Order: sequence, then structure tokens, then C-alpha cells
Amino acid sequence: MSQVDPHRSTALSDDELRTLDAHWRAANYLAAGQIYLMANPLLTEPLRPEHIKPRLLGHWGTSPGLNLVYTHLNRVISARGLDTLCVWGPGHGGPSVLAGSWLDGSYAEHYPDVSRDAPGMERLFRQFSFPGGVPSHVAPEVPGSIHEGGELGYSLAHAYGAAFDNPDLLVACVIGDGEAETGPLAASWHSNKFLDPVHDGAVLPILHLNGYKIANPTVLSRLPQAELDELLRGYGHEPIHVGGDDPAAVHRDMARALDTALDRIALMQRSAREDGVAERVRWPVIVLRTPKGWTGPREVDGLPVENTWRSHQVPLAGVRDNPEHLRQLEAWLRSYRPEELFDTDGRPVPDVLACVPEGSRRLGATPYANGGLLLHELPLPSLDDVAVPVDKPGATLHEPTRVLGDLLERVMRDTWARRNFRVVGPDETASNRLDAVFDASGKAWQAATLPVDEHLERHGRVMEVLSEHLCQGWLEGYLLTGRHGLFSCYEAFVHIVDSMVNQHIKWLRTSRRLTWRAPVASLNYLLTSHVWRQDHNGFSHQDPGFVDHVLNKSPEVVRVYLPPDANTLLSVADHVLRSRDYVNVIVAGKQPCYDWLSMDDARTHCARGAGIWEWAGTENGREPDVVLACAGDVPTQEVLAAAQLLRRHLPQLAVRVVNVVDMTRLLPREEHPHGMPDFEFDGLFTRDKPVIFAYHGYPWLIHRLTYRRTGHPHLHVRGYKESGTTTTPFDMVVRNDLDRYRLVMDVVDRVPGLAVRAAAVRQAMADARTRHHAWIREHGTDLPEVADWSWNA
Amino acid sequence: MSQVDPHRSTALSDDELRTLDAHWRAANYLAAGQIYLMANPLLTEPLRPEHIKPRLLGHWGTSPGLNLVYTHLNRVISARGLDTLCVWGPGHGGPSVLAGSWLDGSYAEHYPDVSRDAPGMERLFRQFSFPGGVPSHVAPEVPGSIHEGGELGYSLAHAYGAAFDNPDLLVACVIGDGEAETGPLAASWHSNKFLDPVHDGAVLPILHLNGYKIANPTVLSRLPQAELDELLRGYGHEPIHVGGDDPAAVHRDMARALDTALDRIALMQRSAREDGVAERVRWPVIVLRTPKGWTGPREVDGLPVENTWRSHQVPLAGVRDNPEHLRQLEAWLRSYRPEELFDTDGRPVPDVLACVPEGSRRLGATPYANGGLLLHELPLPSLDDVAVPVDKPGATLHEPTRVLGDLLERVMRDTWARRNFRVVGPDETASNRLDAVFDASGKAWQAATLPVDEHLERHGRVMEVLSEHLCQGWLEGYLLTGRHGLFSCYEAFVHIVDSMVNQHIKWLRTSRRLTWRAPVASLNYLLTSHVWRQDHNGFSHQDPGFVDHVLNKSPEVVRVYLPPDANTLLSVADHVLRSRDYVNVIVAGKQPCYDWLSMDDARTHCARGAGIWEWAGTENGREPDVVLACAGDVPTQEVLAAAQLLRRHLPQLAVRVVNVVDMTRLLPREEHPHGMPDFEFDGLFTRDKPVIFAYHGYPWLIHRLTYRRTGHPHLHVRGYKESGTTTTPFDMVVRNDLDRYRLVMDVVDRVPGLAVRAAAVRQAMADARTRHHAWIREHGTDLPEVADWSWNA
Repeated sequence: MSQVDPHRSTALSDDELRTLDAHWRAANYLAAGQIYLMANPLLTEPLRPEHIKPRLLGHWGTSPGLNLVYTHLNRVISARGLDTLCVWGPGHGGPSVLAGSWLDGSYAEHYPDVSRDAPGMERLFRQFSFPGGVPSHVAPEVPGSIHEGGELGYSLAHAYGAAFDNPDLLVACVIGDGEAETGPLAASWHSNKFLDPVHDGAVLPILHLNGYKIANPTVLSRLPQAELDELLRGYGHEPIHVGGDDPAAVHRDMARALDTALDRIALMQRSAREDGVAERVRWPVIVLRTPKGWTGPREVDGLPVENTWRSHQVPLAGVRDNPEHLRQLEAWLRSYRPEELFDTDGRPVPDVLACVPEGSRRLGATPYANGGLLLHELPLPSLDDVAVPVDKPGATLHEPTRVLGDLLERVMRDTWARRNFRVVGPDETASNRLDAVFDASGKAWQAATLPVDEHLERHGRVMEVLSEHLCQGWLEGYLLTGRHGLFSCYEAFVHIVDSMVNQHIKWLRTSRRLTWRAPVASLNYLLTSHVWRQDHNGFSHQDPGFVDHVLNKSPEVVRVYLPPDANTLLSVADHVLRSRDYVNVIVAGKQPCYDWLSMDDARTHCARGAGIWEWAGTENGREPDVVLACAGDVPTQEVLAAAQLLRRHLPQLAVRVVNVVDMTRLLPREEHPHGMPDFEFDGLFTRDKPVIFAYHGYPWLIHRLTYRRTGHPHLHVRGYKESGTTTTPFDMVVRNDLDRYRLVMDVVDRVPGLAVRAAAVRQAMADARTRHHAWIREHGTDLPEVADWSWNA
Repeated sequence: MSQVDPHRSTALSDDELRTLDAHWRAANYLAAGQIYLMANPLLTEPLRPEHIKPRLLGHWGTSPGLNLVYTHLNRVISARGLDTLCVWGPGHGGPSVLAGSWLDGSYAEHYPDVSRDAPGMERLFRQFSFPGGVPSHVAPEVPGSIHEGGELGYSLAHAYGAAFDNPDLLVACVIGDGEAETGPLAASWHSNKFLDPVHDGAVLPILHLNGYKIANPTVLSRLPQAELDELLRGYGHEPIHVGGDDPAAVHRDMARALDTALDRIALMQRSAREDGVAERVRWPVIVLRTPKGWTGPREVDGLPVENTWRSHQVPLAGVRDNPEHLRQLEAWLRSYRPEELFDTDGRPVPDVLACVPEGSRRLGATPYANGGLLLHELPLPSLDDVAVPVDKPGATLHEPTRVLGDLLERVMRDTWARRNFRVVGPDETASNRLDAVFDASGKAWQAATLPVDEHLERHGRVMEVLSEHLCQGWLEGYLLTGRHGLFSCYEAFVHIVDSMVNQHIKWLRTSRRLTWRAPVASLNYLLTSHVWRQDHNGFSHQDPGFVDHVLNKSPEVVRVYLPPDANTLLSVADHVLRSRDYVNVIVAGKQPCYDWLSMDDARTHCARGAGIWEWAGTENGREPDVVLACAGDVPTQEVLAAAQLLRRHLPQLAVRVVNVVDMTRLLPREEHPHGMPDFEFDGLFTRDKPVIFAYHGYPWLIHRLTYRRTGHPHLHVRGYKESGTTTTPFDMVVRNDLDRYRLVMDVVDRVPGLAVRAAAVRQAMADARTRHHAWIREHGTDLPEVADWSWNA
């Protein structure tokens, strides 16, 4: 079945074949051993039921194929002295990658008790899919990995993220034919239009067609080969096929295929780097067709197992109770001839290790998979150089994200040489008003260009593609290999990556508890084009719920910021770009917004995360009668407008204005590292006064964060309640009862013992809302008193 | 640029060309008019600033291309008498599809005040992207549509969903080259491997390469044509190219291309249906290359606009203030020669309407886009025929989803002839133990088969593909065209479609308010393989947050059920399969679970949604000292085990056990139609007694639902708090403090005035937890007293 051109590559010697096969058999033995054994790891005695784990959990099907890749990557890394990272896509590849890193010695370096000898092998076996042990997929605990194998679909995007700006790195990426059916993976193939052969490393996809998912054949494995080739060429790749079920033949094919692919990659990189060739190139892809569960039991209980979906998990399920299954397992394990592979102490013999590379070249030891080791501080400018001057609050307007664009432009410029910072987004960098970055870097683009194009650049570090999945996947891969970045996204549509951010948060949560994993730069979201300003998009573009989603996750990892103006946005951005191992969510508008705080005040306010804006309230040293709290730019504006109305119409009332930037400060101290102690919360919000809280998103989030506080029964929250359409900015807040008039009415309704005059004020507010409704029907614009409002106190 | 084989199709007559072009010009005029005008719709007087809308919002770029498709679909529908639905993928196609349906008369049938005359035209223009008007993308308000154009990526999956089991339907699907970059769209191309040419209709993708997104070229438009053809052939399609910028030439090409495609489709359907040909066929795809913003302003302020991204939204932005822009706009609008297209009353002249089909064949009037009109009741069996016999609670075990499988099998069988029910899932139907359905229908599969395959069937109605996006998109398309279905999914990974379900909920919320949209069958999720039973997958597979996500959305639409056993699952499933216009989320385990309720009791309990399980408590007519509440199968088991421990160890304590099936019952009456009035809530949970609530998911959700209740300060919730790994079922609940021992400790900690003996009980519980930790370290299994526990009271 070989279709590799034999003239392009050297053939394996018999010696090489023998040692490669020894490594592969050892890995297969170790993979099967992990699934089944808790004792007698070297089969030094006949297999008995008590050697078998009480619950058999794990996935054999994908393991032999992955082991083959591990073995052969070892060979080419050694032969060529390559820095290589491998992304293992197939979901449950845990047994293989654990086997490979145990064999190359890196596993014991990370986990000394799982030593490369018989006691270590027994621990390796026992811990696998065992309570409190290691999961059956590739996870943060696995050395050499940046990719959680659980959910499927992100391997190729991770691989590209790892390759960007790592010109000396080869990223091999094994893609399972199951995950190849997912949307994110299907979109990822076109990542090659964004890979710069000069400044980026190479990605070598290895599409592993083992034919089956859990219970079905896979689509790609059932295409005629010619159709599959058309597909891969259409993706911009040149396929190289390897396949069969005779190990020796497959070893020879695989070695040739890898040599062919790597020769081609080297040639392409040379022509781009040395000869300046600027045409997009067709990168190789290896198509590896081997049987699912290869070398495992052919038949069990009269049904075919090898090369069918039945080998997906545990091919022999009844081993502890069924003597025939136990016999089959023993025969299977002995078929690898463990006595030839390990010495009597359980150490791999030299033949097995002949292909294994040295030191940090080993797949399990590459620092690229522990990116914190390679991380450099980001050069961040002084915020005073980009800040907006603010002499008094509310006197000037700026578009906050445009101001942030100036900061990002400087970072982009100052990372020109090191190339360790990227900005990603789904075709929205300019729309989100961050276009100042284009002064420092164009947009990565390797496809054809036309004279009319702007800012496209072969070496650009701004990434734009209309796929949130790709943005997220690329950035994750980039961060996990030791670089920095920012993802700017439409607020509503960031839900597209809900599931991906879950996995990244889980990855970070687990990584933080592994002492050997060095901290990496945080994943930073800028959510803009937010719910309150979908003037012509309307209801389908309104969703502030990503914050809720993220706040369900591990508090060690998640942070949420709602800066109310340009300078607070700068302060938050500076903070998150310096932070490590977090997922930071920033929500900030792109529309003109009043400047409330000077840069110094913004720094202080953001450091506190929440604080009283004394200049906006009317406490004057008295105890407040009511607290107006706000989080988010639009709610802050409405609260200040309400405060101004109260100041004018109910001047005796002592109003406190509190602004919250860091949402997690509202949580109890025990539930989040940023959580306020009760005395501080009570000091800000009081224990017994009415609090009217205007919040950017779903109002119940504030209740969920504060329900344990003493003053919670007095808290009344306004926010987005799924009431939206194509309309003006002020009509949006009216529809959701977040407008200044409604807030004043809330105050009147909730503060006890107000003067009689308050009823008239309330009526005036209700009238203003009626006036609004009439005006907007007639004019299609906001009331002049609202459109022209400014802070004036 | 034509590459259509001229011998295969008839050429347009000059007369046809003239009338088609008239329709297209009219549609272009109407699209531009919607973006700009609020008066003077027929340009009966010179254009003045006051005719222009105060805010210019809308998207011109994609409109001329979509109009071309609308015009030419009209022609072939009329000529061939086809039932056709068109899915309009490009995001902001609103102006076009509104124009098309206004021209074909269907718009006025749905909205009589927007009549097909001058006053109606003025209303059509004014309402567009106007406060309280219609959004700039295709939305539920648009007749003839089943597809929200906002988020992008789902058009092709929707098209396939509409085509399944509609053998007489042609589904045209315009795919924008922007959305083609998304993951879901990229995966959707392979849907053709699941389309049965015998029982399903045809999908005709029209890939519209207009070259640009918001601010960038598109990837597919910048591939060499040969590479694009390889890609499309690799997807299983035969490309037919149409392109250019000369209207007459493009009209001729487009007509030929459509004829070629439809001839081929008819031939393929005939050979499958009449001749029984069973080979997978290569369906046609039309590649339409026309300039973005075609026929709009070529240059504005010295910069090229037509055929660039600058025509994406409003090509002339300063019309009200800039006389040159106003002049350009007038020239542009008059270039369509409106006086030839509309009579003096604003009615389209006969030439314009010559291509428009009749009655329900019109794209704006097809009942397939208002699926409720075509909906038939699902034949549901008597639940007693599938129920599990339960003489006393907790005496037997069943796998709830397997029992549900029996119900689904009957539904599948009883819809054999009508074919209006499908079950979709990402390769998990058997894993989720619903495999009984295979007795009634195989899995849809058109790719190659091998002798080893099981349950694959060319005409199957179980859909399995490893893409949650495809499952969701197919099912949405299927439901919106008037059929029924169920999506079974891993609980953690259903977050993959968070964003899609948002859009579907928003679609239903809006549709429910449109009197002309008939109710459709609900979108039903079965979430299984849930957080508590990820014994070998561990942390990455644990996420119960989809419920939180859905409960943020419109209460008119969302429903969430956590049936605690097999019969309650049957009752809930029966209910949701009969319901309309909802998104129903059911969370239920697949592992063996005690049967608590007989079918009759289950019906009663589910109808109430929450109730006291008197047999489980020890109230005996007394006022309870404590309430043990539970929602979800695993929490219910732990609560019952805790109740049993309390009965044994603290027999004097009056314990009430409350089980909640319908989560929205916990909400206040004003916030959800299912919400309990306070008196009922207080009656169930008391106003002042401690309530220990064991919940399936994130504990704060219960607080968010109940914070307004009088008894809320006494509520203590246990649930999943992101503490998980590869471990046993009981260890999972221990790690999250949801276990029976912890619940008993909670009771002791919270009930005031307990006997001294309670301290000893508490210590015994703590000791049991310690014993658990030691046992699991040693044996890797659960304590025998837990593993063998059964209800015995």
C-alpha cells in the first residue's frame, strides 16, 4: 500500500528496523499493561486474576498507531537533531503518550516514583485510569503535552499556535479520524494560509485513519482515496500515504514518509528564508492507515475486534472472571515478547532505546510543551504615555478600545524582534477599533493578495479569520508554548468557544498544581461590541452571559473585569498582560464613552477592584440613604445620570456611588482569592441600606455572587433580561429597566421615609420614559436630553 | 468567465433575460432603499437630506449577489414547479430577502401594512434597521426563512436538516465566503454522506465568493480555482462556476448553472429512487463569484468601494451632510431606473414579476419555512407499555436511558411511514444506552460500508457524526421544517453548541411573538454521561453548566428537567416530545440507578415538578426539623442514603425529603411560567427550617433561582464545585461534599437543639469519610457499605 516515492528517501537498515520495532513493541506492551495490570508488570509469573485491575477503564484502539508515530518521531528527531513538539489529537491516547515518555526517561524525571524500572512500571500501570490516578487521555499531567485529548477537535489549531513565531520548531500533529469530523478541526486545515514559512515553524499533520470512532466508521476513512486526496490538496496539503497491517512494511513506509515530509519542509523553509520565495507552498500531510486496535486480540467471543470499533476501549472486558479472556490477554501481552524488551529489573534494553533522542529533544522533555520555561516578560509601556488626560470626570469622551489600541500598538512594536505577542480576532480588529496595531504589524496572510488589500502581511502578527474556534485554538497553542496574546471578540459570539475555554481553564487549574509546569501567560479576552450597543444587529447579537459561564469555573484561574472607561481599561489591560496562568475576561465598549478617572485614579480604583466614587455621590460624610452601584460602561453612565437627577431633584438624599471593576471582588473571601472580606463589603455597600445595582449582564449574576452577604436582602439588581431588538442605545436600557429614570424610580421605591416631594419626582421620571417612547417612535433617535447628556456636578 | 457546459442547458431568451434583469434591478433598488430612505421611496422628487434616515445602518455588500440568487431561483421554481426553500447564509442579507419577499407578494401577506405599493415600500424602507423595526440580517420576522443570519456558520447544516425526510423539497443554500471559514460550516460539507437520495430532498449549496468579510479578503476567494475545485470535490461535490461583473453575462451563466445543477439532481434522484442505484453520488455545488457591493458606488472619496470590503455596510456614509454623497446616492439609486420597474403607485410592473412563482411555491410563502404548518403529532406509546414495574421504592435498578431507548424505539417504529422523527448524537447513541432504537432504524450512512459494520443504513433516521455542531444544526433545520427529534449528548460537551442554542432560543422567542408563525416541535436535549460518572475520563469531562447557560435565556422558551429515575425520565420525555416551541434540557444518567417511583407516581411527581417524598422522610405529620432536597439522580441517591442514616441514627428527627424534577419551578412565579408561588414554595421547603439541597450541578444555581424566597437564608446547597478527577462514583461525591455522610453532617450542623447524641453521629459520619479515603487508596473501589447500599426503610 506504500505510495511513498522510494527515490526520495533512504531505506531503513535491518538494524534500524529491528530497534524501531523493539521500541514500538515496548510501547504497545506498556499501553496494554496500563489498561489491565496492577501487578506482575513484567509477566514474570503466569497471569492471574489478582494481577488485573478491579475496573478496566481505558482506550486501546488508538494506542498502537500513536505508538508508531512516537517511535518514528524519535527516529527522525535523533537523526536530524530537530526540536519537535507533538500534539496528540486522538482522544484517548493516554496509554501511548505515557508509554512513550516513560520509555524516553522524561516521565521519571517529572515523577521520580514512576521510575524506568519494574517498580516504576508497576506504578505506571496501576495509576492509569485508577481512582486518583491519571486520566485515560493526554492531559496536563503528561510530560510533553500541550493538548488535552478529551473533547476533540482542537489539535491542529493548537499545533499551529505552537508553530507561530517558533521558526526552529517542528510541530507534528496526529489527527484522529474521529476528531476530523468536528467543526473546529475541519476549519483548522486552512490554518496553513496563516503560517509564515520564514518566522514560523512547520506543522506536519499526520491524519490517522484507523477507521472507527466509538461505535461507527469515520467519514474520512470511508472516502475513496482519490476523493480524500482531493480534499487534502484542496486544504493546501500534499498527501503522503502510509498504511497496512504488516509491521515491518509499515515501519519502512513510515520512515520513508517522514523523511520525505521533512525533506520537503526543509526545502520549503530554505527557499522562503534564504531565497525569499514568497509563494504559498503546499505543505506535506501524512495519511496513516493502520487498523484500530492493531496487534490486539483479533477476535473475542467469536466477534471481530482488531480493526473494528470494538477495540475502541477495552478489547477483553471480562478478564478477572473469564479464564478464556485472561488467557487471551496473557497471549496478547506475551506476543510483544516483553522478555526481549526489558531486562530483569524492568529497564528497557538498549535496542528499545536506540531511537530515543537526547535531553530536551525528547518528546516528553521538550520545553516547548512547558512553555512557562521559555516565557519572557512582555515589554509594556508606561500607561501614562497612552492614557487619556482627565482633569475632571465626565468632561471628555473617548472610545475605550481605541485607546487600548494605542497600548497594543506599542506592545506589538516592542516585540518586533522577539515576536512573542499576537492579537487574534474574528475579522474584527478594526471594527473593534484596535486598528492602531496595524501601525506596528499587519495581518498574517499567505494566500493571494490584490492591490486593494490593506494591512495584509506575510510576516504579520495580527491574526484574523472568521472562526472564533481558530482564534481560540491558535492563541491557546501560542500561550502554552510560552508567548503572550489577546483575543478580541464580539461579546455575544464568544459563546462559540465556551467549551474550548472550559478545557483551557481545566488545563490551567491542573497545571497550577503540577510543580514541574512553569506558569504561562494568561489567556486574555477583550469582549466588545457588547450587548448594549447592537443598534442595527438587534436581539441575535445580544448576550452578556460569557461572564456567567466563566465564573462557574475554578476560582484559582478565572478573573472578570468591567472597566467603566478608557483609563480603567488601560489599567486592567496592563494588569492582565502581566499575569500568569489565568483566564481574564475584560468587557469594554468600543463606542464613545465619558472619561471618568485620570490614569492615577484609574490605577488606584482598579487595584481596589471596587470603590466609592465620592465625587459622584452626595454623602458628604453622612451615612448614605442609598447606594447606587454599577459595573460596566453603560450601567456606569446610567448610574451617574441617575445620581445627577437625584442630586437635582432630591438634594437632601445621601447617595453613595460604588463602581465595581473586578467582579470577583463581590464573592466571599473563601470562594475566590479576590473575594472581599465581609467587613469590606459591608463598608462599601452597607449592611442595611437599599443598594440599586446596575449591572452590564444578567442581573441574577450579582445575586449569585453576593447571596451570603448581610446586606443581600436589600440588594436590587438591574441588568440585561433578554429584552432587545434593533434600536437606539437609550432604548436598549429602557427596555431592560436599566435606564437613569428607572433607577431613580427604584431609589424612590426603596428608600423609606422620603419627603412627599419624592412622589412627584417619581412621576417625572415615569413621564420621561413615556416621552422617550413617543419620541423614538417618531424620530428613531434618542431624546435630545439623553443624547446630549453630560456629567455636570 | 463562464465554465458551464453550454450543451447541457438551454439558453435564456432575450425576453427572459430582460425580465430577470428587471426583477434583479428592482430587488437591488429595494435593498439600497432600505438602507438609506425614509421618504420619497420612488424618487418621484429629487433626493433631499430629509429623505434619508438619521442613522445609516445596514449591509449592502452581500445584497446584489443574494438578489441574483433570489431572482434566478424564482425562474427555476416557476419553470420546474419545484417546492423550494432557500437558506440564506451570508450574515447581513436582510435587505435582499426582504426585497425578494416584498416583490413576490408574500411579505404583504404576512405584514399587510407593508403592502406592495408606494406606501408599503416606504414602510419597508423605514422599518429596516430602525428602532423597533427589523434587523439587518435574515431573522424570524422574514417570511420564507428558517435561518438567523447573525452569528454565521450554520446555514448548510440547517439546509440538510430541512432536506432530511422531505423527498420533494429542494433546499438551496447560499453560503457566504466569510461564514465558510467557520468550523461548523467547514464540517457541514460532509453532510452529504448522510443524505439519502431516496427519502431526503436535495441540497444545492451556492458558495457565494464575493471576496471579502468585514475588513479582510476571504480565504476561499483567494485560492486558485483549481485548488478550490479540489476542495469541493474532496467534499463530495461537483463544482459549477458562475462569475463576472457584466449583468447580462452573469444572468445567462447563472440560468445555465442552475439548470445544469437541477438536471443533475433530478437525474440522481431518479436513479436512486427508480433504478435503485445505491452508490454515493456527487451532488452539484454552484460557485458564484460576483463583486461585493456589485452595482453600488465604484469609488467614494477617491477610494475603491465596489468589489472591496468597503462596500460591506453602508458605502456612502455621509449622505445627510455631504452633498456629494447625496448626489452619488441618487445617481446610484436612479441607475436601476425605478421608473421602469414600478408603476406610479409603486407597484412592480409585470416584467419585474414575470419570474415570480405562484402561491406557496414562492420563496417567501413556502410552508417549509413555517414548519409548524406541516407538523403532525408524534405517535407516542402508552408509557405503561415501557415503564419499569416498581412495587416499592429502591428495590430494583435500571439504566434510565436504556429504558428511554425502548420508548424511542417505539416512536421510531411508529413513524416508519411518515418519517418525521430523528435521533441525533455525536457517535454516542449506543454509548448512551439508547441502542434499542436500532431495532427500528439504522444509522444514516451513505459512505462506503464493510461487512463488519452494524446498524448502518442508507435510509436510517438515527444520525451519528462526531460533531455536536452538525447534530444541533441538522436537528434545528429538521424541527423548523415541521418535524420532531431528540439530541442525546455528553453533558460536558454540549457546551460546544452553547452559542447555537442561544440563537435557536432567540429564534423561538421571536417566532412565538409572530402570529403567523405556527408552533414547531421543541428542541429536546438528553444530557447523559454526566458529571458524576466520568470514572475514567475525569476532570476534562465534567461540566454540568449547560443548565446554567440555558436558564439565562428567555423563560418563555427554556425548560430544564432532572428526572431521578427511569420512570420519571419516561414521563419527562413524553412531555417534552409533545411540547412546542421550547428548548427542553433533560439531564439523566445512563448508569444503573434505583427505581424510586412507579409509573403512576412518576407521572404525578413530574406533573408537579417538585414534591415531598413522604415515604422517604420521617415527618409523620409533624413539622419537619430539616428538609433534605435533591435534584438529579446521583444527588437523589445520596439524599435518600442520608435520610436512611438519619432515620437510623437520629430517629427523633423529623426529616422531609423533597425531590425537584423541573428546575424552573424553583423560580418565582413572575420570572417563569412554571415558577411556584411563594405559598407553595414555603409549603414545600418551609419558611424557616434548614434546607440541605443536594443538586446535580453548580450549587450557586439553586441560590440564583431561590434568592427571593423567604426561607432562602436557611438554604444550604451542595453540588459540583469543579473538584474532579479519574475516580470512583462515590469518591466524586465525597470530593464535592455531596455525599451522604457530609449531608448528615450538614444536618447536624444546621438543625438547632439536637440531642447530645448528634455529636457522636456527626463524628461517625466524619469517620466514614476517613474510612472511604483509606479504602479507595488501597483498593481503588468504593467502600462495600456504599457499593452495596440499597434503600431499606
